[in-house]
Amino acid sequence: MTGSLTFVLGGARSGKSRHGEALIAEHPAPWHYIATAEALDAEMGARIAAHRARRDARWITAEAPRDVAGALGAIPDGAPVLVDCLTLWLSNLLLAEADLEAETGRLVEILAAPRGPWVAIANEVGLGIVPENALARRFRDAAGVLNQRLAARADRVILTVAGIPIRAR
Amino acid sequence: MTGSLTFVLGGARSGKSRHGEALIAEHPAPWHYIATAEALDAEMGARIAAHRARRDARWITAEAPRDVAGALGAIPDGAPVLVDCLTLWLSNLLLAEADLEAETGRLVEILAAPRGPWVAIANEVGLGIVPENALARRFRDAAGVLNQRLAARADRVILTVAGIPIRAR
Amino acid sequence: MTGSLTFVLGGARSGKSRHGEALIAEHPAPWHYIATAEALDAEMGARIAAHRARRDARWITAEAPRDVAGALGAIPDGAPVLVDCLTLWLSNLLLAEADLEAETGRLVEILAAPRGPWVAIANEVGLGIVPENALARRFRDAAGVLNQRLAARADRVILTVAGIPIRAR
Repeated sequence: MTGSLTFVLGGARSGKSRHGEALIAEHPAPWHYIATAEALDAEMGARIAAHRARRDARWITAEAPRDVAGALGAIPDGAPVLVDCLTLWLSNLLLAEADLEAETGRLVEILAAPRGPWVAIANEVGLGIVPENALARRFRDAAGVLNQRLAARADRVILTVAGIPIRAR
Repeated sequence: MTGSLTFVLGGARSGKSRHGEALIAEHPAPWHYIATAEALDAEMGARIAAHRARRDARWITAEAPRDVAGALGAIPDGAPVLVDCLTLWLSNLLLAEADLEAETGRLVEILAAPRGPWVAIANEVGLGIVPENALARRFRDAAGVLNQRLAARADRVILTVAGIPIRAR
Repeated sequence: MTGSLTFVLGGARSGKSRHGEALIAEHPAPWHYIATAEALDAEMGARIAAHRARRDARWITAEAPRDVAGALGAIPDGAPVLVDCLTLWLSNLLLAEADLEAETGRLVEILAAPRGPWVAIANEVGLGIVPENALARRFRDAAGVLNQRLAARADRVILTVAGIPIRAR
């Protein structure tokens, strides 16, 4: 059974999720959505609700703020999956004081052996000024390492800029 | 009468304004410049002066920190116009506590029906770490939404990176 | 004697250094490495050590946190050189209260007359939200100006995104 991994990378509000959903919708439903967002506050809750409102009944949602590997393990062979998004997953792990390096390595290995048309979304966060906050710098580094590793193993890499998907590889 | 809309998007000091001016200068003068910057402090005043010094007498400048729609309405049919920049316009509206969503929708509709060679400039601001400040997050979201909407309606979209214009669509 | 200048530009942890090293390694060793990083604290020390661990004995390292021009002057004709990175150099000059505009102009002139296969690395830092800190805004502007000037004079410009080199010019 062959699968493929597409990595969609972009900034905040660049159309990453929308493009990821469009790529998945090229395949027959049902579609699996692995959501890493947690509604820890009202702002986050509103974002989650807005994303959810865009998805119809053909989507099967699994909430996996930390255990994306486990959620992927439960997906049937051949099924289309959208993981949205890995940067948030990394941020959840940081708050849980997990070993980011080890967790990243483990998840990238799983994503690099897709059992269907899989799409993973992440944020590019390294193109601003160096953050003053040491934790933010550590997070920025970990996110960049994750993005590099995933891009190296993905079958295709797409950057979204102002809603435009640009093929990077 | 047919017009066209070019959207130039880039980071701080990426050569957006210079490229926008070059695109306008392909057309016969006079050229219209709709400036959204306000000299609220010395730093901003210096930036405005530096931009202005680059433009010669062929440019007709209209200051429109908030009413870009009104300024566009006053432009003669067929005339080349540069709007610089929409992200600053959005920031002015945020400070004025306007409805960003509604204002963005309204302006994008006007820009999407150009009556000459029109060029609109905006900043990409979503490729750094999530801002700690809630207002900055709201602004970042609104700027991203504006960029997506404008890109979707523009005839061409150009990214500037280190002064290099890259055609995105 | 002809040389060439390649400018590698990217975000934090985007694979800039690795790609710069790969470009240099296309040429016969020994390879010259002009390092602008200073181990002012433990975090910076760890970064320097990680970079250094990747380079083997074929690399000749010169530490030049501020005098990159001097270090380039000492490089033999025809030798491959990697300068990593100019944004850090600019940051060192800012802390030393140097005239960033003048120093940038002077260094770009030297880099624009390469005496071998030269590769210069810099960070793109202008794609996030406007920094609240005035010094950070000044730095961001100076970094953008440096990137534009260098890109204009380089024989090729490469953007790195998630470890993927993208030819910009």
